[in-house]
Amino acid sequence: MAACLAAPRASLLPQAPGKQAQAAAALAPRARPRVLAARPQQRAAARRAMTVTAMAAKLIDGKAIAEDIRKELKAEVEVLKAKYGKTPGLAVVLVGERKDSQTYVRNKKKACEEVGIVSYGTDLPETASEEEVLKVVADYNADPSVHGILVQLPLPKHIDEQRVLDAISIEKDVDGFHPLNIGALAMRGRDPLFVPCTPKGCLELLKRSGVQLSGKRAAVVGRSNIVGMPAALLLQREDATVTVIHSRTPDAQRICAEADIIIAACGKAEMVEGDWVKEGAAVIDVGINAVDDPSAKRGYRLVGDVNFAQAAERAECITPVPGGVGPMTIAMLLRNCVDGATRAFAAGH
Amino acid sequence: MAACLAAPRASLLPQAPGKQAQAAAALAPRARPRVLAARPQQRAAARRAMTVTAMAAKLIDGKAIAEDIRKELKAEVEVLKAKYGKTPGLAVVLVGERKDSQTYVRNKKKACEEVGIVSYGTDLPETASEEEVLKVVADYNADPSVHGILVQLPLPKHIDEQRVLDAISIEKDVDGFHPLNIGALAMRGRDPLFVPCTPKGCLELLKRSGVQLSGKRAAVVGRSNIVGMPAALLLQREDATVTVIHSRTPDAQRICAEADIIIAACGKAEMVEGDWVKEGAAVIDVGINAVDDPSAKRGYRLVGDVNFAQAAERAECITPVPGGVGPMTIAMLLRNCVDGATRAFAAGH
Repeated sequence: MAACLAAPRASLLPQAPGKQAQAAAALAPRARPRVLAARPQQRAAARRAMTVTAMAAKLIDGKAIAEDIRKELKAEVEVLKAKYGKTPGLAVVLVGERKDSQTYVRNKKKACEEVGIVSYGTDLPETASEEEVLKVVADYNADPSVHGILVQLPLPKHIDEQRVLDAISIEKDVDGFHPLNIGALAMRGRDPLFVPCTPKGCLELLKRSGVQLSGKRAAVVGRSNIVGMPAALLLQREDATVTVIHSRTPDAQRICAEADIIIAACGKAEMVEGDWVKEGAAVIDVGINAVDDPSAKRGYRLVGDVNFAQAAERAECITPVPGGVGPMTIAMLLRNCVDGATRAFAAGH
Repeated sequence: MAACLAAPRASLLPQAPGKQAQAAAALAPRARPRVLAARPQQRAAARRAMTVTAMAAKLIDGKAIAEDIRKELKAEVEVLKAKYGKTPGLAVVLVGERKDSQTYVRNKKKACEEVGIVSYGTDLPETASEEEVLKVVADYNADPSVHGILVQLPLPKHIDEQRVLDAISIEKDVDGFHPLNIGALAMRGRDPLFVPCTPKGCLELLKRSGVQLSGKRAAVVGRSNIVGMPAALLLQREDATVTVIHSRTPDAQRICAEADIIIAACGKAEMVEGDWVKEGAAVIDVGINAVDDPSAKRGYRLVGDVNFAQAAERAECITPVPGGVGPMTIAMLLRNCVDGATRAFAAGH
């Protein structure tokens, strides 16, 4: 049973550990929701869950945790300014006019400003050549006031994404997507300079919720390069025993149901159902999917890769969607940027 | 149940697939050992196993398979010579006078000669500086007649192994230990230039024994950088569902017993016992451990990380120790070297 120890518990269940307590817990009536340190949005999510059934799980409030991290970073940036007389800088490269990409970039720049990171940006037209994009990356690589470079994906189809990402100096690879960083993440005795933001955010949520990782079993649902794969490597570095579940996995439900920790990042709405979740597990839901809902104002609602209402009945703690992993991704981008700047300043750059 | 289809079956069990056949197999008297295409050494191993109990498993004959591969490579080298007028070359760097390292290096050079690869070697004294070793590596990096560079490990303690390994050009990293190669191995949509030899050999044994990997569950026991970790990444690339078992894994036996494929690389004599092996599993034993045996001529005998006699009763196919994975490691080193040369020749180098 994964323990979520970050916040005081208001559980009605016996507090003593051991098998007897677990057995009692299984038989006891469901505890009232323990929505601790939660913002209104999460309280609403919990209420929605309760319309289906009473939930036992503690909500992991990603918005509140991300806010804490941004405060910590703001203080760190102040210290860096005082110590070195320099400010961390993030460069964001946007190619084309995709509305969603423009929104993401705007949010990232705004988040930078809030913690005192200077944001630089280059917007290129949809028709920009690969060489032009590479030139922009090379210039930022050489610019000592830039400590992180982010190329907003997807790039237009005529540009080789892999080639552009590989061109980012690994000292400034704040997305952590460079194969050198991934290789170091996989290898014992090595440390990557940067870890991809979303899986890093998942681990941070678990750690700040007091979930023990070492010696626990973990299931990662999905094996993408940006979430599932690095999340599995991160969990393994923390001495969890990890199984990666993917589209070719036989009996995914049974494997998942053995895990003390679940990270769901498969991109399929509510794929992880109640019986996929072990009693007392910690559940991190990376997914964000729009599903039709005539009763909703906009005609749809956002759901994760986990069936929240079902999973919350069995989990010890769980992230809501939205307000769970989402806010952590940008917080971790800022974290990586400040880390990169700290290394650069310490090295005299 | 993992099917081993490479060789004709001499089983007494019903051949029809499906649950009924499996149930019948579970009830049927143990089949006689199916030692197919095995060399005298393996026959002896099988006989030894039989002194404990009758075995049902087919032996995976690494020595015979490695011999096949060396023949294939010899033919490929001839083709390269005819097509480009050039010969693949492997450079082996040995620092110090360790007897075991000297033997390994001698065996590698001998294996090169047998398939027509030119071997180069630099032997440095135990007292050589890190800079001297790096200079040797840099020279081989620049030498167009060298297509693979191997630094024999371990290096003397005063030399930073990581720094030396990272200095090898990734185009010549025939050991596949460079983090760029490991990163590419972990990432979907990328292909490493080289895969580490021992785990590559494990996969080759499975494939040449007709073991299906896609959609199967696999357990990798051990998470070293040179075997366990890359073996897990390779299995996942083949669409297996992989769990890495390590020293902090709870209930390792139960997890392992669910696997259709086991790769044991934990370095602990006979740790994987009979009840760790699912009926019908394919078992690859990477370990080679000396255990005291007063009845043996030399006072010890070599055993793997798997209890062979017990596992052979339940497995569908299994590698012996010695004569399983061992011969494959050098065969894969030669394979990597020929691959590197083929790429270089095709690029006009």
